[in-house]
Amino acid sequence: MNEEINSKEELKRRAACEAASLVEDGMKVGLGTGSTANYFIERLGRRVTEEGLKIEAIATSSRSEELARKIGIPIMSSFPTVDLDITVDGADEIDPKLNLIKGLGGALLIEKIIAKISRFEVIIADEGKLVKRLGEKSPIPVEVIQFGWEGTLAQFSDMGLEPKLRLLDDNSSEPFQTNQGNLILDCFTKPLEDPEIVAREIKSITGVVDHGLFINLAQKAIIAYPDRIGILEI
Amino acid sequence: MNEEINSKEELKRRAACEAASLVEDGMKVGLGTGSTANYFIERLGRRVTEEGLKIEAIATSSRSEELARKIGIPIMSSFPTVDLDITVDGADEIDPKLNLIKGLGGALLIEKIIAKISRFEVIIADEGKLVKRLGEKSPIPVEVIQFGWEGTLAQFSDMGLEPKLRLLDDNSSEPFQTNQGNLILDCFTKPLEDPEIVAREIKSITGVVDHGLFINLAQKAIIAYPDRIGILEI
Repeated sequence: MNEEINSKEELKRRAACEAASLVEDGMKVGLGTGSTANYFIERLGRRVTEEGLKIEAIATSSRSEELARKIGIPIMSSFPTVDLDITVDGADEIDPKLNLIKGLGGALLIEKIIAKISRFEVIIADEGKLVKRLGEKSPIPVEVIQFGWEGTLAQFSDMGLEPKLRLLDDNSSEPFQTNQGNLILDCFTKPLEDPEIVAREIKSITGVVDHGLFINLAQKAIIAYPDRIGILEI
Repeated sequence: MNEEINSKEELKRRAACEAASLVEDGMKVGLGTGSTANYFIERLGRRVTEEGLKIEAIATSSRSEELARKIGIPIMSSFPTVDLDITVDGADEIDPKLNLIKGLGGALLIEKIIAKISRFEVIIADEGKLVKRLGEKSPIPVEVIQFGWEGTLAQFSDMGLEPKLRLLDDNSSEPFQTNQGNLILDCFTKPLEDPEIVAREIKSITGVVDHGLFINLAQKAIIAYPDRIGILEI
């Protein structure tokens, strides 16, 4: 069992190294959030300190920014006025068109803003994240403002979704709060026929800030299989 | 001049009284925000304390809630599980279909959530707020999250709008912040041919929380003309 975990982590690390090799001198780089993204940040940090790679980065969370600073990756002092050359991030589900569900870590809003200004969004994940249709395994996380969240939740039920307020942890009755002080409703669903339509419908609801459906935002996925690294591109 | 102001305020007060007369025993009432809504709250408070009117209210801002509590209007202890019977609020622009621009006061998000759960949304305003097409006089206020607001602003420019970050006041370089800790971009525009399409497009942008276009949300407007009160209904 331990060996299996070790080899799974090792494969994620290899996928992250593959992603880090795509970064070139002078690039503006977006840093994702989560355990797989951390492997990327660590590897990129080594390229900066050991190879002298010259880059500037912006992080999708304070956790990632902290890690990046600690290992010597230069962080932009303000939001970039031009698009990023590359962003590397994880995902919770990946469909064959590279549409994604993200946000189980709670950082979906900043991750999406960064993805939108990235010319090249690369996803790194293990093969367990591949699905035929989004929603097969994962709920769609939706960031909603606190005021009236009960009314917002009711609207998701009307749409045929099964929304559940995310709590701090399984033993808590305290709601989880995003960095923006908002709540997350995890919307369980049957596998989505057309995620783009669902994405548009969710975003249009008053009280919704954003959601974890990432449509047409990723250009490449580096997938860690048990025995190899696979590349998906569109 | 003073007389003119006094008579204008007097007419707004009369419009607010008219609106307060629509409230009946047992109703759940939404309280708007702003100078005209304040007249309504004051009048409603008198009906509660003097006539013994039995209602329960929810306010669209802490300012309105404070005023309501002070004058004896019972405030709901939690977000209502059923729709409100009536909400009375002001507006910055009103078109002939009772579509609105709201939010110059900065409370648009809560005002919209309350409007959405109101069976009967009544607008009180002076005749200066009537326009043929929305955008004639007022910008569209858009509430955006702080992270990456410069990128969000650029997207409004791409849409042909003229966005301007709202500041605390004319002499300040500090941005105004909403109760949710977000920023307001005031988007100047030529008069809108189809406000519904613009509303949908703005809400779909990542980083936008909500905006001041209120489409198909008001059922009645009570307008203070210089010499009379007028009613618009759809």
